Amino acid sequence: MDLTETPDLAYDVFSKACPSRGTLEHVTGRWGALTLGALAALPEAEGSLRFNELRRRVDGVSEKMLSQTLHALERDGLVHRDAQPTNPPRVDYELTPLGREVAGRLLALIHLVEGRMDEVLEARERYDTARGGR
Amino acid sequence: MDLTETPDLAYDVFSKACPSRGTLEHVTGRWGALTLGALAALPEAEGSLRFNELRRRVDGVSEKMLSQTLHALERDGLVHRDAQPTNPPRVDYELTPLGREVAGRLLALIHLVEGRMDEVLEARERYDTARGGR
Repeated sequence: MDLTETPDLAYDVFSKACPSRGTLEHVTGRWGALTLGALAALPEAEGSLRFNELRRRVDGVSEKMLSQTLHALERDGLVHRDAQPTNPPRVDYELTPLGREVAGRLLALIHLVEGRMDEVLEARERYDTARGGR
Repeated sequence: MDLTETPDLAYDVFSKACPSRGTLEHVTGRWGALTLGALAALPEAEGSLRFNELRRRVDGVSEKMLSQTLHALERDGLVHRDAQPTNPPRVDYELTPLGREVAGRLLALIHLVEGRMDEVLEARERYDTARGGR
């Protein structure tokens, strides 16, 4: 990949007024990234998850934060919310086609970070040692 | 890309105790993502930036937040800090080889989001209209 590639786009996350910065934050925020990642890691045949299933997969998220995260992703058109009028109501979440594309790039980043953590932890040790240990 | 791919890794961002979650947050956090993106978008020949140049590119970041962000990325081995003992001291920041790989995946995600913002904004309009406008 050519890292110097700078496409001529109408939207620019580096500009603080651009709406793309907000969407990038929904996608890469602590819970947004893990929520999209959890939905993207599902086998194709079972592409949706109920709220509580999602909450178990995104270890550590509160009910309130997961709810806010899902609303922001739904509003941006990345997640589809399907509510069945049963009693109790059954609500499923799944990625939209755009959400799958975004989550695919995100998973590629997540897998790279997970795969290189040995290097990251060695770097941290060198950094802390050079500064007298912490 | 096969989104169902689940590599057997020692590290797992979905587990809240895993150190990879912290690194993912440094990489995808509001300022971490833009800082890595700004360094990655440089032409190969001028691969480093001074603190104030970085601050201008990452529109909206405060001096304190940029400094914290750079320290976290340096500690994780993603950014290299080069201090010249001149007066005033000259400090340059550039990506390490691992930082370039991570930033490459991040830029791929950023470019996708920027390129699909028309769809995102249409989705927001539909969402807000369905809920009586906001």
